[in-house]
Amino acid sequence: MKAVCLLSGGLDSSTCLGVATRDGYACYALSFDYGQRHRIELESAARVAKLFGAREHRVVTIDLRAFGGSALTGDIEVPKSGVIGSGIPVTYVPARNTIFLSFAMAWAEILESSDVFIGVNAIDYSGYPDCRPEFIEAFEKMANLATKAAVEGRTRLRIHTPLVNLNKAQIVKLGAQVGLDFSLTHSCYDPDPQGRPCGKCDSCVLRRKGFLEADRIDPLG
Amino acid sequence: MKAVCLLSGGLDSSTCLGVATRDGYACYALSFDYGQRHRIELESAARVAKLFGAREHRVVTIDLRAFGGSALTGDIEVPKSGVIGSGIPVTYVPARNTIFLSFAMAWAEILESSDVFIGVNAIDYSGYPDCRPEFIEAFEKMANLATKAAVEGRTRLRIHTPLVNLNKAQIVKLGAQVGLDFSLTHSCYDPDPQGRPCGKCDSCVLRRKGFLEADRIDPLG
Repeated sequence: MKAVCLLSGGLDSSTCLGVATRDGYACYALSFDYGQRHRIELESAARVAKLFGAREHRVVTIDLRAFGGSALTGDIEVPKSGVIGSGIPVTYVPARNTIFLSFAMAWAEILESSDVFIGVNAIDYSGYPDCRPEFIEAFEKMANLATKAAVEGRTRLRIHTPLVNLNKAQIVKLGAQVGLDFSLTHSCYDPDPQGRPCGKCDSCVLRRKGFLEADRIDPLG
Repeated sequence: MKAVCLLSGGLDSSTCLGVATRDGYACYALSFDYGQRHRIELESAARVAKLFGAREHRVVTIDLRAFGGSALTGDIEVPKSGVIGSGIPVTYVPARNTIFLSFAMAWAEILESSDVFIGVNAIDYSGYPDCRPEFIEAFEKMANLATKAAVEGRTRLRIHTPLVNLNKAQIVKLGAQVGLDFSLTHSCYDPDPQGRPCGKCDSCVLRRKGFLEADRIDPLG
């Protein structure tokens, strides 16, 4: 069984690819170069795809910068308070997961696959609306009205979210179980030119919390 | 009121932009360079955006060719039987409207607009599943769970489909009413190097039918 697995190279999506691999899927990893500050995550994605023996790894370039509107792609600063605030932060990228899932759905249809994996998480997360289960469910419904494969009854697309109800510590434990080498991953939104994490952005804070509570050492420090 | 209007440069999307303009929206036209054979339609899109005084016209490049799987982007021939077949044709591009609407939704959020226009039509059409009203409804539901603007209650995205229940003749009449200069548009899927329509693909066949039944002359011949 083929599956398209969205892979940013971070802790969550890398664990998610590991789960899909463990569950016997032939995985087609899909990453995006969307003008993110932390483009270095694409190198992590390539390493993680290789680690798990993905059949293919494609990086699709999309121009989210054309619209601006996010600290991850635009000129707004990435906040580094060291704590997770309330509300939806400025690192939110408009429609990002919708766009990513749309491309995943296109590739799945061409591969004649009916399975897409995405490592969204709605417990220890930044509050992005497009990480919540109700969004994923609505996307799945829409997708099954959109594609030739679904309409002709050949296949029904299923969007797998194995991490959605896990906290960050559980994700770290699951990652270890499926054989993820954490040193290959990258989480920071605003690394220094050498790729070292800032330690203070939301993504760094959540990662540290996960390793701490899982009682494990993060090889990235 | 701002609206994002998907604009291919064809008869339907051009008429749709004309309707949004007539209805008083400040229109932001959005086109895609997706490796389509008929890239020349982008020149039509630019001319039509200018005709209707769109505030901006952006062309986003996306690499749908990376996945292949369609006669419009890949190596499959465009069928030229001169009649509309049954079923979904090989010119179907997997997830195309889902991807287009995802980008429209991103731009709308950044513009703080709650209106997106798309010229889909489910009467005289090629049978693409992502042109049907049930798909559009499902997309709208999904979008309103995906964006910061919707979740924070600032705005609810509405997807307008003013052409969805019109036949091609009615679309031609509506286009004329809103002041569309048909000579600026482009419909053919497989034009010759000079941009002249083939006259035999689905898109040419539907266009001819529309002008015939509307009792009007198509300036493109």
